[in-house]
Amino acid sequence: MLSVGVVGGTGYTGLELLRLLAVHPGASLDVITSRGNAGTRVDKLFPGLRGFNDLIFTEPKAEVLSDCDVVFFSTPNGVAMSMVPELLKSGTRVIDLAADFRLKDPAVWKQWYGMEHTCPELLGEAVYGLPEVNRAAIKNAQLVACPGCYPTAIQLGFLPLIEQQIVDSSRLIADAKSGVSGAGRQASVANLLCEVSESFKAYGVNGHRHIPEIDQGLNAISSDRVNVTFTPHLTPMIRGIHATLYAELTADVDLQAVYESRYAEEAFVDVLPEGSHPDTRSVKGANVCRIAVHQAKGARHIVILSVIDNLVKGAAGQAIQNMNLMFDQPEQDGLVSVPFIP
Amino acid sequence: MLSVGVVGGTGYTGLELLRLLAVHPGASLDVITSRGNAGTRVDKLFPGLRGFNDLIFTEPKAEVLSDCDVVFFSTPNGVAMSMVPELLKSGTRVIDLAADFRLKDPAVWKQWYGMEHTCPELLGEAVYGLPEVNRAAIKNAQLVACPGCYPTAIQLGFLPLIEQQIVDSSRLIADAKSGVSGAGRQASVANLLCEVSESFKAYGVNGHRHIPEIDQGLNAISSDRVNVTFTPHLTPMIRGIHATLYAELTADVDLQAVYESRYAEEAFVDVLPEGSHPDTRSVKGANVCRIAVHQAKGARHIVILSVIDNLVKGAAGQAIQNMNLMFDQPEQDGLVSVPFIP
Amino acid sequence: MLSVGVVGGTGYTGLELLRLLAVHPGASLDVITSRGNAGTRVDKLFPGLRGFNDLIFTEPKAEVLSDCDVVFFSTPNGVAMSMVPELLKSGTRVIDLAADFRLKDPAVWKQWYGMEHTCPELLGEAVYGLPEVNRAAIKNAQLVACPGCYPTAIQLGFLPLIEQQIVDSSRLIADAKSGVSGAGRQASVANLLCEVSESFKAYGVNGHRHIPEIDQGLNAISSDRVNVTFTPHLTPMIRGIHATLYAELTADVDLQAVYESRYAEEAFVDVLPEGSHPDTRSVKGANVCRIAVHQAKGARHIVILSVIDNLVKGAAGQAIQNMNLMFDQPEQDGLVSVPFIP
Amino acid sequence: MLSVGVVGGTGYTGLELLRLLAVHPGASLDVITSRGNAGTRVDKLFPGLRGFNDLIFTEPKAEVLSDCDVVFFSTPNGVAMSMVPELLKSGTRVIDLAADFRLKDPAVWKQWYGMEHTCPELLGEAVYGLPEVNRAAIKNAQLVACPGCYPTAIQLGFLPLIEQQIVDSSRLIADAKSGVSGAGRQASVANLLCEVSESFKAYGVNGHRHIPEIDQGLNAISSDRVNVTFTPHLTPMIRGIHATLYAELTADVDLQAVYESRYAEEAFVDVLPEGSHPDTRSVKGANVCRIAVHQAKGARHIVILSVIDNLVKGAAGQAIQNMNLMFDQPEQDGLVSVPFIP
Repeated sequence: MLSVGVVGGTGYTGLELLRLLAVHPGASLDVITSRGNAGTRVDKLFPGLRGFNDLIFTEPKAEVLSDCDVVFFSTPNGVAMSMVPELLKSGTRVIDLAADFRLKDPAVWKQWYGMEHTCPELLGEAVYGLPEVNRAAIKNAQLVACPGCYPTAIQLGFLPLIEQQIVDSSRLIADAKSGVSGAGRQASVANLLCEVSESFKAYGVNGHRHIPEIDQGLNAISSDRVNVTFTPHLTPMIRGIHATLYAELTADVDLQAVYESRYAEEAFVDVLPEGSHPDTRSVKGANVCRIAVHQAKGARHIVILSVIDNLVKGAAGQAIQNMNLMFDQPEQDGLVSVPFIP
Repeated sequence: MLSVGVVGGTGYTGLELLRLLAVHPGASLDVITSRGNAGTRVDKLFPGLRGFNDLIFTEPKAEVLSDCDVVFFSTPNGVAMSMVPELLKSGTRVIDLAADFRLKDPAVWKQWYGMEHTCPELLGEAVYGLPEVNRAAIKNAQLVACPGCYPTAIQLGFLPLIEQQIVDSSRLIADAKSGVSGAGRQASVANLLCEVSESFKAYGVNGHRHIPEIDQGLNAISSDRVNVTFTPHLTPMIRGIHATLYAELTADVDLQAVYESRYAEEAFVDVLPEGSHPDTRSVKGANVCRIAVHQAKGARHIVILSVIDNLVKGAAGQAIQNMNLMFDQPEQDGLVSVPFIP
Repeated sequence: MLSVGVVGGTGYTGLELLRLLAVHPGASLDVITSRGNAGTRVDKLFPGLRGFNDLIFTEPKAEVLSDCDVVFFSTPNGVAMSMVPELLKSGTRVIDLAADFRLKDPAVWKQWYGMEHTCPELLGEAVYGLPEVNRAAIKNAQLVACPGCYPTAIQLGFLPLIEQQIVDSSRLIADAKSGVSGAGRQASVANLLCEVSESFKAYGVNGHRHIPEIDQGLNAISSDRVNVTFTPHLTPMIRGIHATLYAELTADVDLQAVYESRYAEEAFVDVLPEGSHPDTRSVKGANVCRIAVHQAKGARHIVILSVIDNLVKGAAGQAIQNMNLMFDQPEQDGLVSVPFIP
Repeated sequence: MLSVGVVGGTGYTGLELLRLLAVHPGASLDVITSRGNAGTRVDKLFPGLRGFNDLIFTEPKAEVLSDCDVVFFSTPNGVAMSMVPELLKSGTRVIDLAADFRLKDPAVWKQWYGMEHTCPELLGEAVYGLPEVNRAAIKNAQLVACPGCYPTAIQLGFLPLIEQQIVDSSRLIADAKSGVSGAGRQASVANLLCEVSESFKAYGVNGHRHIPEIDQGLNAISSDRVNVTFTPHLTPMIRGIHATLYAELTADVDLQAVYESRYAEEAFVDVLPEGSHPDTRSVKGANVCRIAVHQAKGARHIVILSVIDNLVKGAAGQAIQNMNLMFDQPEQDGLVSVPFIP
């Protein structure tokens, strides 16, 4: 039984980790930290966890966390990098759900996140935790950087096209829509129900932090330069990401077959029958990415639809998938759940 | 491994049965029927079930269903009574999630449901499936009538007061609010998103079918005549029932202790600390009723708050709890899930 | 043309004032203040007002506001009382949408609002701005205290019963449900979309600030002592209050006639046909309270349903109705709008 | 005062017509028809209209409607064409909110709408009611075909680019998101709250009826062949369309200036400051299209954001704008309303 610690257990990805770990057959959640709620019982703050979790939030301390086999960071950007070096030294493995270790170039990191990286020497060692691309490396990783939610949906959607070099990689468009939980659980006016329900908007059209991550990920597997125009939107619901991807085909292929073959062995990527329109609720609460491929006769663009639950395959579920791989547990352990409909 | 059949698998309670049975360790779902969708793969209609269910909807046939150990009916009122007698004769046990066997008096049934009961002889034999009241009888039952969603939340909320005879039982009020899934999955204008979202209303103030059920249930355990004024409301969300219960205390008791003691041994009823306000999301997707007790000093009325997920403890979850009891399986099998937050 | 000032124009009631005043035929909005946004164009913060409002938020200053004929305060509790004495001295009339002048007894005010009242001498002079009760006094008032949202819906619902002395006034129950805009536009975790959508809860069961206001209002018109058990709830939508009121009748009357006759001359109270169930969307955006009366044969309780838009008849609309009365304008000026459906 | 008739007053566009006409200073609504509700008072079906509308739904009859100056059809596709010829003959002018007269080519119409056009001779005479393009023709039109909701948002967004010939018109992408009211007010499972809330999906990726309309409209003003890839999506809210438009610039221009100059004289198109992200609530209930232009340095694609209320500028509001033009009334009559926030 793995001993697990969670740093930052009061945000939505942290809370989802608690939900998933509560029923994981091979993991024991032993430490949960929260600076703001230290001393409070977890199930007092989240009554839904009554009966599943009798822990008390504590201050994050490396000497306590280093007794765990693995520590998840579901903290604001910039927090993990201050504790990770010490944990790694003590032999504890780390899975970061924030952005601290996603980018390889510390200068790019600073440009997008507005702070100096404090342990750039770990950026090379950190493994980008997208199992469908990096499974082998993840198994041996001491430090895994979990992909962002948008990058997960978008990369899994574009992957077969890039790998097969069958599209004009300079003309990709990712029009993505996210539920509000992606914005986190901080006090703000912007994400009040009365501000975001019954409304829809784009944001960050001039630049979003997930752009360099998507660029890095897709260029790593491409021979040609990949250029993605990325537009994120906020849609009035709690969970879910829907990425609508546009590309121009440069070869005459059976797209459906390309996708089905690429993901045939992947437990958590589901290629739907041709002509499907996956709705985000078909993945709500589940660690799965569903993809549908549309190729109209004579059309300029193909359209790929890719949906995930941003808190599961886009965050906590993928983090546990990484943990399973790192500790040689069955990859699906703790992740077999039926999407929540209605 | 129990062999299970589900008659009527395309409504919301049927769909929730499919979700819960998919991960039940002791049950194998072998037959799903749907007149309207016979011949269609279940996971074509509900893509969220891909990988969990490869069955095909079939026409309901007693000779096929009678091979099952237990058959659930999640059908419109009046359907179950046409097939149940034959199934019982063949030795198959039945759990009805509709109203066909909830009321003991066929005249009352006819009055509220507008049709003649076709097997009134079974009404006496049918056990009302509220485990917190009828656990022993359920274990031996051939035919279980699952309680309605409102009656579950309301009876569990009033139970300790009635049993202890500490309130004026002629002056009870149940002001209850339900999510829209309680209205079912039929084509209708009334339950379109554009009709019910961003709005709140009462309905059936002049009489709702759950009134005779609540009356029957509470009077069965009361020495005094119980009279409940019941007002159902529709609230713009998918799942959840919140019952706000009012009563006038007639004795000087420690209410919190009364409730905690009554439900101390119940796995699926959770009495919250004094002064709590359970929100319905604290039970979303989980087979639990959470109750909070409010007794203001010098106040005329005590206020009891009782919340359930109408599709789980109010329908499919409670049905499986009954199945577990009927077949001597651990009562919590297949029902250990963390509420879904956010 | 009246010259109007609004102090606190960035909350939901302030914003609704801006929306309504923009099309009022007899009022010119000349000053809008906001400490936090002084210097910012109003239509930069609220692009929906582009073309309707080219003002700039300014710091609140009595010498500027006193040039207005009337000043609305849509500020947090405790702000208005610090500026109102000076404004009144200068001859400017004041309509306060907050609670500062609603209660007559400064000791009760302190008990519920946690601060000392700084101008208790004005409490006697302030007129409670419920036109259906105090129309004559409002016309001559220098200072009007607009009723709270819950108290508006609840008092209008109970009024005919109390005035006619036909119920047991010691046994009243008001089970009320509010949309989230009632909680205001402050940064908070509690009112994030991800916290309150898809969930329903009661709050303040042990005591809510609107209780003394309801008590004061109903007792003022009653010969017997009035006692109301009040339970507020939060329902996942933006606007709307639905009050479900319970009482025990003590006389044999035609309830429908009692209500229709009481409100026959009221432009903003609409008594629906017997047996109706008003939904809150039937008043969305409109300055109206719709009421339905339910009296089941032989039942213990009558049930009154009363709905308003909390931001209109429960706040900004009623404030403008008061302004119209104070300045001898037609009471409906600026308030003729069709509810917003769907 | 114009005498107005509405055929099909029970759908969402019909209902919005009733809301807007109720306060139009120059129009008197004299006839409302509904086959399904003939004989019912309008305000019985829609209590929100109590006090604004005391009409009774009648069967649609040409001899009655022909007494009106203008008749709006807010009916399912295919209904208007059966009555319009007779009305036109009698001198009544017609504004059709459905698709019957939008396409010029009856063969294309048949292909997309699945029925033979019964009065193709009127297709040439019908004026496409997009005032920002066809104002002069609308003024003299006997028959106006109101644009679809998506085509309104998309054409207004692309218009300046096409007119100025500054983009590769063969590579346009319109990724559009609509609230659920766009799907109409028919009984259906697909649009139940429990099916579409808390979920997001694309639909009709392989072909949507608005494609030929967009193609026809944009090609009519373009010298080069215009090709638009159009993907509609359903977003869980009632009203609003957000079109995210992608194009590749072929000239070095100041985009913001191009848009501001194009729409400088248009009362109902609002070009926001550079870098803006209009949310759909900024147009809720208002007859306006807000547009923002994004041109990142060195980027392949420019991004245009265009939002409307699908029921107002996308349907009923635009219909009234057309009526005002046809009858030489001020274009803004009855259309001056502040968007509804929150």
